[in-house]
Amino acid sequence: VKLKKKKACLSLFFSSTALHLIAFLMQKMCSVWNKLITELTRLSHTFLHVPQLHWIVVEDAPQPTPLVTDFLAASGLTYTHLYKLTPKDRKLQEGDPSWLKPRGAEQRNEGLHWLREMGAAAKGKEAAALEEAVVYFADDDNTYSLQLFEEMRYTYRVSVWPVGLVGGMKFERPVVEDGKVVRFHTGWRPNRPFPIDMAGFAVSLRLILTNPQARFDGDAQMGFLESSFLQHLVTMDDLEPKADLVNLELYSLILSSVF
Amino acid sequence: VKLKKKKACLSLFFSSTALHLIAFLMQKMCSVWNKLITELTRLSHTFLHVPQLHWIVVEDAPQPTPLVTDFLAASGLTYTHLYKLTPKDRKLQEGDPSWLKPRGAEQRNEGLHWLREMGAAAKGKEAAALEEAVVYFADDDNTYSLQLFEEMRYTYRVSVWPVGLVGGMKFERPVVEDGKVVRFHTGWRPNRPFPIDMAGFAVSLRLILTNPQARFDGDAQMGFLESSFLQHLVTMDDLEPKADLVNLELYSLILSSVF
Repeated sequence: VKLKKKKACLSLFFSSTALHLIAFLMQKMCSVWNKLITELTRLSHTFLHVPQLHWIVVEDAPQPTPLVTDFLAASGLTYTHLYKLTPKDRKLQEGDPSWLKPRGAEQRNEGLHWLREMGAAAKGKEAAALEEAVVYFADDDNTYSLQLFEEMRYTYRVSVWPVGLVGGMKFERPVVEDGKVVRFHTGWRPNRPFPIDMAGFAVSLRLILTNPQARFDGDAQMGFLESSFLQHLVTMDDLEPKADLVNLELYSLILSSVF
Repeated sequence: VKLKKKKACLSLFFSSTALHLIAFLMQKMCSVWNKLITELTRLSHTFLHVPQLHWIVVEDAPQPTPLVTDFLAASGLTYTHLYKLTPKDRKLQEGDPSWLKPRGAEQRNEGLHWLREMGAAAKGKEAAALEEAVVYFADDDNTYSLQLFEEMRYTYRVSVWPVGLVGGMKFERPVVEDGKVVRFHTGWRPNRPFPIDMAGFAVSLRLILTNPQARFDGDAQMGFLESSFLQHLVTMDDLEPKADLVNLELYSLILSSVF
């Protein structure tokens, strides 16, 4: 199988409705490298189906890991490989439950920073193309239906959709009335400013570039990481709901595949 | 994203080197349907990249499950959807450890039976194409590198390759001397007739059609399911090793991605 290798470059931005997926990779112990490559392989097979996709991979590491470097180079995807080490006091210690502290804030902010640098350097047609692009925070342990990327591609500010869950509540979703999101159906702390999973929203690059102060707060309380970012950008009234919920079967298909 | 839906039909067999993937799906409790659809979605994204792939899905069920039926119909893949209920005394009971009894023997045999019926009905060019095809037993909890399907495509009798593992020993693999498999490097009972994982071999359809007695023994001791089938077909000396192990990096990439 011959896969063309393409590195990210400014010409990418000539394409309208490009999707920039920012993914952070936790620092892994050696014993779980097979698991990491497994997850990345599966993701790459999904991403290879998606037109105009740019994968921004940010490792929680002091320098790029050779295994990840080699994987990305062989993947056939358009990618940017970054790294940002989480400060020691914020890192999860071995034995800590995984929900203990927000994870990936520094790495997602590093991805945002890279996009903002690109935005500042862009001129003319490139700059115009940036107006159309969309940013999605895609973690490596999720599964994405291909329809999802088409739903998010046309995002003016922030779009949202249902997210299927494995274990616990079957899904979380926006509740829509008259085409507007009025609240979220979720099993946990529905009174958060944005009670939504990282996988449940996408943001227009235009909004990110025009709001340079918008970033993830690494000190945010558990479950509030998404809110710490979104509150800089939109109100609930501005949200654009995707994945038409009239057809329940379709709803289940999109839903169950994204968690 | 428009995906063309194609049902399996005899014309498939006009293509040389078709790959028939037999996968059995365990009966799932309702609470894990999201997980099943998640795994199937990931697999379908991988399989969509593989030319001439025919997915034979055999459910351990008394009739086809609507969720699986709908998923396959929307997948864009060429597939055949079968079902075969495991006899009660062989089924894993809730609470049994998963290694307790061989799993999927009846379902894999059902897939073999379907292929043999196809073989008996084929004439002329169709029959000739069957000589070229390859059968692989692909479980839904594995990850497959795309190179793997190209390695297995040219199988005369039975081809074998390394399999990466998550947890425990890092991998299992054939040990090759002078181009022949002399033994297997494995962490568990290396004295089995074929100490190899279900994911670690593929069989030419020709060999299956000319050996109608070859089937999986549902009563086989734990770990001997693969041997119960392969011993009808080949000796260790006949095995065709794939995935050139000279280049250790490549070895790791194929390896770590398949488990």
